[in-house]
Formats: sequence, C-alpha cells, structure tokens
Amino acid sequence: MSFTYGITGLGIMGGSIAKALKKNVVKNDEKIFALDKNPDSLKAALDQKIIDRAFNPEETKEFLSSCDFLFICLYPHTTVEFLKEHKNDFKTSSIITDISGVKSIYLNDYDSLCPCGADFILGHPMAGGEKEGYTNSNGDYFKNHNYIIIEDKNIKLPRGITEEEHKKNISFFQDLITKMGFNKITITDCSTHDNKIGFTSQLCHVVASAMVESAEDREITSFGGGSFEDLTRIAMINSPLWTELFLSNKEKLLSHIENFKNQITKIEELIKEEKSAELEDLLNDVRKKRIDMQK
Amino acid sequence: MSFTYGITGLGIMGGSIAKALKKNVVKNDEKIFALDKNPDSLKAALDQKIIDRAFNPEETKEFLSSCDFLFICLYPHTTVEFLKEHKNDFKTSSIITDISGVKSIYLNDYDSLCPCGADFILGHPMAGGEKEGYTNSNGDYFKNHNYIIIEDKNIKLPRGITEEEHKKNISFFQDLITKMGFNKITITDCSTHDNKIGFTSQLCHVVASAMVESAEDREITSFGGGSFEDLTRIAMINSPLWTELFLSNKEKLLSHIENFKNQITKIEELIKEEKSAELEDLLNDVRKKRIDMQK
Repeated sequence: MSFTYGITGLGIMGGSIAKALKKNVVKNDEKIFALDKNPDSLKAALDQKIIDRAFNPEETKEFLSSCDFLFICLYPHTTVEFLKEHKNDFKTSSIITDISGVKSIYLNDYDSLCPCGADFILGHPMAGGEKEGYTNSNGDYFKNHNYIIIEDKNIKLPRGITEEEHKKNISFFQDLITKMGFNKITITDCSTHDNKIGFTSQLCHVVASAMVESAEDREITSFGGGSFEDLTRIAMINSPLWTELFLSNKEKLLSHIENFKNQITKIEELIKEEKSAELEDLLNDVRKKRIDMQK
Repeated sequence: MSFTYGITGLGIMGGSIAKALKKNVVKNDEKIFALDKNPDSLKAALDQKIIDRAFNPEETKEFLSSCDFLFICLYPHTTVEFLKEHKNDFKTSSIITDISGVKSIYLNDYDSLCPCGADFILGHPMAGGEKEGYTNSNGDYFKNHNYIIIEDKNIKLPRGITEEEHKKNISFFQDLITKMGFNKITITDCSTHDNKIGFTSQLCHVVASAMVESAEDREITSFGGGSFEDLTRIAMINSPLWTELFLSNKEKLLSHIENFKNQITKIEELIKEEKSAELEDLLNDVRKKRIDMQK
C-alpha cells in the first residue's frame, strides 16, 4: 500500500514542505495530500503537480484517515485546537508532527490533545523570513537549516504506540527531514526549546521591530550601508503569528528582553563615560564570541 | 600629463577603492598610487597590478605631490591628524576626500586641517562588513551601495579653489563613484550625516553587540533560523575603529540608544500586560514602515 504524506495548512511553510517532499523524498507509489481552507493554494499546488489530492476543511476526517505522516502547519494555538478536535481521527500508527515556534503550549492540557493511536513528535523547522503564503513557498527553503525535535518527559507516548515503534518513528523522521534539506537536527525538551528560541528568534524580532519603530523617517535607507537593512529585514513581520508567539512564550521572552536591555545599558554607560579602553575590550569580546558562534 | 589617483591606507576600503578604480575607471594613461605603512599590502597590490606605484610613510610628501585625486582611507582621527600634518603638501588643484564614518570631527578646528590649494570634499562610501584588510578587498564591493557627499556651510572652500572649480570637482567626484559601482548619492551636511549614520550604522552595531553579549552560550546557533545570524553578523566588529566612531558621535548615538530603548520598553510592556490587539497593531505598523523603507 502506498505511503501518504499529509500537510494541513499550505502556506509558506506547508507549501515548502510539500515542495521539498515532492522534490527529494516521495517515490512513485507515494503520495502527498493537502488540506487548506484556501482553495487557491490547493489549486496552485495541484496544477503544479506538487500534491496529489486536495481536501477542504469539510473533508478533514477523510484527509486525516489517509495520512501516514502528517505535518500540521498551522499557527500554534490553532494547532492545539486542531489536535484536540481530531484526536480520534488520525490514521492508526501514523506519525503526527507540528511546526510551532513555541512548544510549552502543548503541556498545559496534554491529555486532551494527545492523538489516539498515532505517534506524536513535536518539531520545529528553523526556517522563516519576511514572506508568506503558498506562492512564496520553495522546495529549497530548508537547505542547510536547523531542525529541532522535541523529546520531553512530559510528552507521553500516545495510547497504542510502543517505545520501540516511537524510536523507529523518530529515526524515520530524522531521515525524512535530512532528505528535505535540513542539515542539523537538535533534540531537546519543550522548556529548553522555548528558552533558546525566545532568544535566537523572538528577541531578534522584538529588537528588529523596535529598531524600525525608532527610525525618525522612512528615507533612512539612503543612509544605509547594509547593517540596518540586515538587522530589520525580519521586521516585515507576520503580526498575528508573532503576537501569538510572543505572548505564548511571555516569561522566557521577557527575561531575554530584560537581559538584552541590561547589555545595551552597559554599552551606553561606557559611551556616556567615554571609557574608551573598556568599550574596546567589550567590543573585542563580542567579536570573539560571535566568531566562535560561526564554528 | 597623466592623471593619478592616490590612496592612503590600503585596508579593505582603500584596497576595494583601488580595485574598483582599476576595474572600472582608469584609462591607459592614468595611474593608481598607494601609500601604506604595511609593506605586505603594498606588495600584494603591486603584484596584482592593481596599483602602479607604492609609497611608504617616509615618502608621503612625494606621494601627495603626485596625486590628482586622493582618497584618505584612514581611521577618523588619524585622517584629521594626516590632514593637519600635510595641509601644505597636497598637489595644487587636486581633490582630497576621506571615507570617515563620522564627519563633525572635521568642524572642531577646521582651519588647521583645511588643505591648502587643493579641493576638499568629504565623503562616506556606505559599505562595510565584518572583514578587514587588503586581502579581503574587492573591486565589486561597492556595487549598488550608497555614497554620501558632504556639502556644509562650515566646510569653507580651501584657499585657491573657486566656487566654479569646486562645482566641477563635485560633479567629477559623482561620476567617479558612479563608475566605481555606487548607485545612490546623497548630499547632506555633517550634522545630518552624523545623526543618520548614528542610527543606521552605529546604533545597529551597538544593538548587535548587546545581542551577542546577552547570549547565554556560544552553542546558540543550533537554535538559529537565520534571524540571530543576520542581526549579529556585524558584531564581528573592528573594535578600535568602532570605539572611535561611537565616542566621536557620542551625543547623537546616545540619543538614538535612548529612543531605541524606549521602543523596546513599549513592546516589553505590551507583552507583559498581554495587550494582544495593541501588540498586533504595533507589529503591523512596523511591517508597513519596513516595507516602505525598501522602496
């Protein structure tokens, strides 16, 4: 019987996953199915022969019962709602994963959303940008990007899934995303994920947004040499998504903002007091740290 | 008689200027001369046939008396010192320009540094990055970059230079940098330059540095999706140069830091108080502003 990959939510992420699967993963007898509320995205994907079959929201149960591996590419809280609503609709022994940028939200009421008879592996493909929608999706989007897979003692195995099966599924998952282009996979728990992502991703979006807000005028790019442009590109932000991400990870994000503001103040003080030698030492330390991070 | 371009300081900027001149500007009978204290950079540029003649610091007077158009590619205060020391050594009717990222420093004691008998046009090629030195220089470095030329009522015409001559020189300068690859030239005064650059360039370097300093560990890039990397690339900073730039533009930079911190605090408060609708409005405004800036 042929194996079917399913994608719920055919936006830039879901679309890119579909294209990466089509390009690098699926064999002749394998299929890609997609579910979306937007018929245009589905039509485009069908026309481009990226997906083999399209489902609208009314056909969700039929869609879910056909998918052996399901990517839920919805906003974080919509993913939680989707899981709750359909916990009994997944294909037996299938694998369900998400792409949410915040993971602790799954822990609040885990039993109510844990799929029944299907394996549940939380994941986070670390790719993104200022573009949105299926039309901007791209099969090479994930090349040389990071993927985070969650293993957390609070995420219990769904009923009907054995330890052995789960191990096999994790290994299948890792092979799959490697074929899709990801080149570094990190396994961690929900809290570590949210803490690290609160820094590398959310804090950066807060900082870029504050930078754009503090621009005196919009003609600023005549005076740009690349720094401002690179730093603020991510400020072309998807506002509902990032509002949700910021608020869902409130405590960890606020602690990163606090820490960042302290570091800004430290530099500010050195400039104010014209402590040239100390400022140079600090910048030198920054340079070394940042070069180390490249390795 | 052949026209000679001169470059003092053959680092990444001076080297890239030499290469862009060689590639796109100089004709058969024109020459490029360079002065540097580092014999290796001079040797490399001679071997690569980028420059026609190399001068060491002891030969400065001979060098200066040969150059029809001189790029002074030194650190800001070193440029001021160089101008003071050699104000009487420049070739009559030649054009002298700098590349300093801060301009008000020239106004403190302008008469003592204003070249004698040569035209003086302050400029700022808006290109830079984390690399340094002649070995990293590149003739395509300036493609599609901005150049700022200073016209300021406090920068008086040097003795012996007429208004008419100066206008012709500005126009020559604009043609020259356009050929070198720059595609947008903005003319402004010292104070506006320092205010704008304090924002687009210096504040970005402060923010990127504070971001790196606030990282908990150096393994952060396993959790990176590009935002942190793009935002902090410029933190691989040339610490002596940027210390000098920050302190030379202290007041304007501090005011930008203050304003930026207020914007961060505004976002922080919205997250703290979970004001979801207001946060989404703000991020939406940020998105629109940033998209406008691309135009």
